[in-house]
Amino acid sequence: MTDPSVVTDDRVVAQEAFRSDLVEAGILVRTSVDGLYQRSAVFESIVRGIERLVGAAGAGRYEPLLFFPPVLPRDVFVRSDYLRSFPDLTGSVDTFVGNDRDHADLLRALDEGEDWTQYLTPAEVMLCSAACHPLYPSLTGTLPEGGRRMEVQGFCFRHEPSVDPARMQIFRQHEFVAVGAPDDCIAHREEWLATALSILSTLGLPVTKVVANDPFFGRAGRILAVNQRETALKFEIVCPVTSEEFPTAIASGNYHMDHFGVPFEIRTADGETAHSACIGFGLERITLALLKTHGLDVQTWSADVRSQLGI
Amino acid sequence: MTDPSVVTDDRVVAQEAFRSDLVEAGILVRTSVDGLYQRSAVFESIVRGIERLVGAAGAGRYEPLLFFPPVLPRDVFVRSDYLRSFPDLTGSVDTFVGNDRDHADLLRALDEGEDWTQYLTPAEVMLCSAACHPLYPSLTGTLPEGGRRMEVQGFCFRHEPSVDPARMQIFRQHEFVAVGAPDDCIAHREEWLATALSILSTLGLPVTKVVANDPFFGRAGRILAVNQRETALKFEIVCPVTSEEFPTAIASGNYHMDHFGVPFEIRTADGETAHSACIGFGLERITLALLKTHGLDVQTWSADVRSQLGI
Repeated sequence: MTDPSVVTDDRVVAQEAFRSDLVEAGILVRTSVDGLYQRSAVFESIVRGIERLVGAAGAGRYEPLLFFPPVLPRDVFVRSDYLRSFPDLTGSVDTFVGNDRDHADLLRALDEGEDWTQYLTPAEVMLCSAACHPLYPSLTGTLPEGGRRMEVQGFCFRHEPSVDPARMQIFRQHEFVAVGAPDDCIAHREEWLATALSILSTLGLPVTKVVANDPFFGRAGRILAVNQRETALKFEIVCPVTSEEFPTAIASGNYHMDHFGVPFEIRTADGETAHSACIGFGLERITLALLKTHGLDVQTWSADVRSQLGI
Repeated sequence: MTDPSVVTDDRVVAQEAFRSDLVEAGILVRTSVDGLYQRSAVFESIVRGIERLVGAAGAGRYEPLLFFPPVLPRDVFVRSDYLRSFPDLTGSVDTFVGNDRDHADLLRALDEGEDWTQYLTPAEVMLCSAACHPLYPSLTGTLPEGGRRMEVQGFCFRHEPSVDPARMQIFRQHEFVAVGAPDDCIAHREEWLATALSILSTLGLPVTKVVANDPFFGRAGRILAVNQRETALKFEIVCPVTSEEFPTAIASGNYHMDHFGVPFEIRTADGETAHSACIGFGLERITLALLKTHGLDVQTWSADVRSQLGI
């Protein structure tokens, strides 16, 4: 079986070609860093259309939607245990807390081409890695009967510079999260995977559901990835964007078991450690899948798709 | 004259009271870090209403709106010279680039309560400090006759933890930027200050225009602040939010002179170093000013204000 994590020259060529097309069409503007793009109003209007569409699918069954800021408290990040599995993707925020003399030292280092960041100190925030992380500390304690169901949206930072426009360093996830008993969480994930397939198919996207694994770091990570696949904890909804053979994950459904229930001390009404599951819609990736499938000029998209997105 | 940077107990009490009101009304959700909030869909709908309203005021006279990501290339940040004047507000991003053994060291430090961030390395990105910073590298070279006019929106990070809900650590600015000859830049700022006063007054906000200064760092910064006021480079549009005596800046118009033209090597058609000016609308602060002025229940706002905002 071909390893999808090995990106061949052919795939890079296709990714660069799509990126060039997006830039020429004025949909994305490149920066000097791979994976960092400025987005046009058209791109943003598609993002907001997807937001409305998935929001409508969950309407009435979730607590009110919350928009999370792009940074979260450092202590929440540490408790999420992300550092253990994905250290290479994290973004830790430093700032300057010194006095005039320290500032003079920083500027001297800067002017002399030295490492000026040595004069910085970790701030009490980190960049957010997954849209649902900031949610869990607010659930500490005992859940009501039946658990809780939440809808959240936020920017996620993943340090993985790439020429693939679908692999941005910072992007938005729109998530529906269930916290409660294991069976309820699995049911939530299954129901939403079906709903997501339906929503995305109705938008004309050639999507399929596949078992998947997260990009766990290092040697130990390879074992974790195999385990995750064998226990079918993660499913992705994939769609060809720059490759038919290696389609892009544009949504995913994850059953976390007690991964968040334990560190955030969340218990069910029965006194058990709560489990959790989420479905995450990758707003930028769905937007790119639509642009690839229907063309770069949204004026030429079918009336049906445009009407669904309200664009 | 009372120094507005000295925050008295009375002001803190008023800020905490407004914050509590916002949280009780479900408009903002607090986190464990001051200045970091989760935002409700109502809050976000007001933000988007302001975005539409100010966008309409600039319609047809600006290049197409660009949405910038919350992080920008490190080299752009360094060239903006922000570190010289506001080191204490910056957010530098670190990530992990080591191998399995380095990762084991990081996790050991984490588990033993040591400083695990020592195993991180500066990434090629920083948190964005001002919405217009990512724009300037794209202007390097010679401008067309008459310069250029741009509309941008983005998240800004300022490390200044505060109980004041109007002093968020990460928030959005919607900006209109002029780059070109000095007179054109000053005219752009003056025209937009008048437009901003008109838009915000029509929304029922008791706004006034005042000369202002940026919070320059340290001893040298105090001189820079005085100079900035004396040369009237910065104006703010202020509105009472938690204090009548110390109203909150909800928009500002800044004439940068050649502050960006020099490092980003931007020249006018005449071959002179380009000047720049921007008007920035603080989307979160305008939202908070509206909530303070018209009440926390948007259903009770006047039909006129709601219709202007499309909410």
